[in-house]
Amino acid sequence: MGQSLLPPEPVIYLVEPFGGPIRRQNPNMPHVFWDDAAVTRGDGVFETILVRGGRALNLDKHLARFTRSAAALALPEPDAQQWVKATEEAVADYCRERMLDDDPSLAPEAKCMWTMTRGRETTGVPTAWLTVRPVADDVLRQREEGVAVVTTPRGLSVAADVPWMAVEAKTLNYAASMAALRWARSQGYDDVIYTEPTDDGERVLEGATSSVVMVKKDQRLRTPAPGPGILPGTTQAALFDYASERGWKCKAKDIYLGELYKAESVWLVSSTRICARVTRLNDKKLPVPDNEAEIRELIAAAVGR
Amino acid sequence: MGQSLLPPEPVIYLVEPFGGPIRRQNPNMPHVFWDDAAVTRGDGVFETILVRGGRALNLDKHLARFTRSAAALALPEPDAQQWVKATEEAVADYCRERMLDDDPSLAPEAKCMWTMTRGRETTGVPTAWLTVRPVADDVLRQREEGVAVVTTPRGLSVAADVPWMAVEAKTLNYAASMAALRWARSQGYDDVIYTEPTDDGERVLEGATSSVVMVKKDQRLRTPAPGPGILPGTTQAALFDYASERGWKCKAKDIYLGELYKAESVWLVSSTRICARVTRLNDKKLPVPDNEAEIRELIAAAVGR
Repeated sequence: MGQSLLPPEPVIYLVEPFGGPIRRQNPNMPHVFWDDAAVTRGDGVFETILVRGGRALNLDKHLARFTRSAAALALPEPDAQQWVKATEEAVADYCRERMLDDDPSLAPEAKCMWTMTRGRETTGVPTAWLTVRPVADDVLRQREEGVAVVTTPRGLSVAADVPWMAVEAKTLNYAASMAALRWARSQGYDDVIYTEPTDDGERVLEGATSSVVMVKKDQRLRTPAPGPGILPGTTQAALFDYASERGWKCKAKDIYLGELYKAESVWLVSSTRICARVTRLNDKKLPVPDNEAEIRELIAAAVGR
Repeated sequence: MGQSLLPPEPVIYLVEPFGGPIRRQNPNMPHVFWDDAAVTRGDGVFETILVRGGRALNLDKHLARFTRSAAALALPEPDAQQWVKATEEAVADYCRERMLDDDPSLAPEAKCMWTMTRGRETTGVPTAWLTVRPVADDVLRQREEGVAVVTTPRGLSVAADVPWMAVEAKTLNYAASMAALRWARSQGYDDVIYTEPTDDGERVLEGATSSVVMVKKDQRLRTPAPGPGILPGTTQAALFDYASERGWKCKAKDIYLGELYKAESVWLVSSTRICARVTRLNDKKLPVPDNEAEIRELIAAAVGR
């Protein structure tokens, strides 16, 4: 079996936003300028994609969301072929450089991140690149062990009726989510689920970097419907597509906090962590469901297609 | 009078977050890494400071806010002495390199920007730097000619009661404000004023990158009180300090949209633009006040101290 002799350096490819050549970037050299909109304004979009067996997974859904995010921020439309080609080359490099044998299916999982920013103030040309690097250890551990989760108001409530608001964009503006995660960790939790107070109770939104999926009895899956404060999840969508074909009843509709406590199980699903079962929600331990292994396999198979 | 023979290249200094040496950075070389929190999460804080006559203005208030922003994001406390020293050196370089004579008081105005990010994922050490560069032409023009402003909901409403929310931090998360400005320009406006619907009418918050100041008769100045959705303004604070000493009655309290239409004049105040009079608010032209020159001088003197 292949084992790396090299330190796990990321593979970085710079992508020309208007269809020019792609080229490998030395990861020990910075490539982002001080006047890049990503740096000065967090003004850009990204995707995080799981790489397994030498292949970037769930690529169509990531491409679709990346394109929607770019449109929402009035960035140029990403050239799908070019991003796919750059991803394939980077993943191939990554697998080749980490293995003693020639079978990419044996390469460890990796995380591919696409970024496109509005670019340098002085040029106005978007900056775009992708990175491929190992999946972090705590992500792998949370897949296995699950996560303790605390609920919190989002703090920012996003209006649906503002003409310029990029509700559906996955932007680089994650400072608030990072603050929420720091706070959660300081309280002994691993993650947060955002909730919103309503007349019907605490409505469930999403995790800091994940979608919430609730498993109910009789093979039912639920997730909060995307909208203001709820980014459409690529992993959740892949899961619902796949599970529906296998007889699960899948619905995106409002979920309230009380329902999470009563569910068979609650999961945070996202690209690289795939799924982490919520083992504790606020002060309440959530019991291990009988079908835990089945759910894991369902999600893993759904994203592996 | 001094005139530049050189292209207006920015002066960039890298600042060691824990008090190490400062050093000049070549502006033609990128210095921000692909895994810097500023790039991946917009996770950092900044200040924008006006440089005039070879001196960075209103420095105490910028230092105080920079320190508050860092604390709100759990970043290390900026070393005030070091930032002041780096600013002085950078400003001195900037003036020297743009002049034929030796009198920095003749150097054109410049914009100094401080940035501190959470740093590279791989090192965990904050990245910090400052830049000094010319004030943009459209900023100078708006000072003279004023701005047409459209009001819009913020889209994001910020809750005050969330334990981890960095309400008072001036973070790099400006993608939404940039989207608001693009939308305003597409509608024929120069800027926005955010408002929030309340039972008492549209409450005025702030501009996209400025504070709102309203001038009323009998030498009265008003600004919305800082709080969720309203960042404390350094220029507004300098103005109120200075004007109070000169007999103006200055108050920070709720302002509603209807009051702006009836004011003697309305201004957007911020560090580099200093002040831009609102000449049009939505579909209504705001008349030139008798004391326009007096107000301009008041603000200019306030920030020039």
